[in-house]
Amino acid sequence: MQLLDRLRIVMINTSDSGNIGAAARAMKTMGLRQLVLVQPDEFPTAKATARASAAADLLHNARVVQTLDEAIGDCQLVFGTSARLRTIPWPLIDPRQGASRVMNEPEGADIAILFGREDAGLTNEELRRCHFHICIPANEEYPVLNIGAAIQVICYEMRMAALERQASPVAPDQSGMQQWDEPLVSSEDMERFLRHFEETLLDINFFDPNNPKQLVTRVRRLFLRTRMDRLEMNLLRGVLSTVQKRVKERP
Amino acid sequence: MQLLDRLRIVMINTSDSGNIGAAARAMKTMGLRQLVLVQPDEFPTAKATARASAAADLLHNARVVQTLDEAIGDCQLVFGTSARLRTIPWPLIDPRQGASRVMNEPEGADIAILFGREDAGLTNEELRRCHFHICIPANEEYPVLNIGAAIQVICYEMRMAALERQASPVAPDQSGMQQWDEPLVSSEDMERFLRHFEETLLDINFFDPNNPKQLVTRVRRLFLRTRMDRLEMNLLRGVLSTVQKRVKERP
Repeated sequence: MQLLDRLRIVMINTSDSGNIGAAARAMKTMGLRQLVLVQPDEFPTAKATARASAAADLLHNARVVQTLDEAIGDCQLVFGTSARLRTIPWPLIDPRQGASRVMNEPEGADIAILFGREDAGLTNEELRRCHFHICIPANEEYPVLNIGAAIQVICYEMRMAALERQASPVAPDQSGMQQWDEPLVSSEDMERFLRHFEETLLDINFFDPNNPKQLVTRVRRLFLRTRMDRLEMNLLRGVLSTVQKRVKERP
Repeated sequence: MQLLDRLRIVMINTSDSGNIGAAARAMKTMGLRQLVLVQPDEFPTAKATARASAAADLLHNARVVQTLDEAIGDCQLVFGTSARLRTIPWPLIDPRQGASRVMNEPEGADIAILFGREDAGLTNEELRRCHFHICIPANEEYPVLNIGAAIQVICYEMRMAALERQASPVAPDQSGMQQWDEPLVSSEDMERFLRHFEETLLDINFFDPNNPKQLVTRVRRLFLRTRMDRLEMNLLRGVLSTVQKRVKERP
């Protein structure tokens, strides 16, 4: 159950504060506690408190921040919820598979699940910050869950998985990374690494004739998917720095 | 999916019509259609319609009745949702087990799921009309889900079970890579890539002070784990070749 305690729900640019209250109630009934609000339109409000019912303590302890970086910078695993399919497919799983992933994270991992705007969801930019996209397999005729209801479903799956894990503590998953030798990198470390990678491409004058923008997105997707640990990242950054140095040694 | 179409959600003495709208939306997003209201305090209302969003058709088609008998008299299987444990224990299952039960019903069965009052749930009398009680395993500190959120969770489990029955919901496994835009690389492609990577390390005169052998093993583990696709590999090989070229341009 401690894992639920560490799990962070991040709501971005929520316009209706009633939905923030509903989210708090959904979270508390499922044993989650950490709510982070990125630039909410209105908060706190009486409406949010009313909808939160006996979960007002979660609203009181909610962290309000201005940027996504503040919300997830220290996280090792980030999920984005998404109904739409994007141009470049990202690892896409359902809430149950997401919960299974969460339960198999190493001890002490900080994990965030991002929820976007009521009308427009997450931006492509935000979705690219995520390791996985979670999609609730909804009715194609009308796939748009209310955001509070979506948070309820995801938190429910997290709780079900936590309960299942308590019942059978050995639950290996497909990642095989439960007992790892190095801590996994944080989201902000990953951003720094990706910037370093891009800089190096510039330094070596690398040019993708087909589509330079796609290149960056594809490299990002590749390295997010692999869940790098710190030693691996240090090794690759060492390689990048050496490349930069060698290229600059030229006359 | 036809089974979902037949599944009936019965709301008894609902006091807040907003919850009826939320229920309609929850149902429609999960592919359910049949809503029955037993003596609602207020219905129809503008509030219900607003909360239903694009599920207003379910409200329009909702059946309003005066007694529980009218609501479930023709059903072969009836579930009651309950947070509390009653004096006489009843067969008590969780939503997932309930969904599994529903999926194993014979063709053409009529099935109802009862939801009680916002403040007091179902009466003992009503609960005794049910074959099974469904309990969402909530946080003991605060186990009271909003009724719309509870309907969302139950309908979600019904849909997941129906999809599982149909095979492949969003993704059959946790990798999330079943619907990928590029074919994954073969083992021999991967070996070639890793050799190319090593060659490049030599060309740039990269040296891991700690343990050169470990470096190669760790890079191998990293790239094997990520399941690279062909385009990603081509991009990275392009980067490696450019690095080699730039370094050799030196006098």
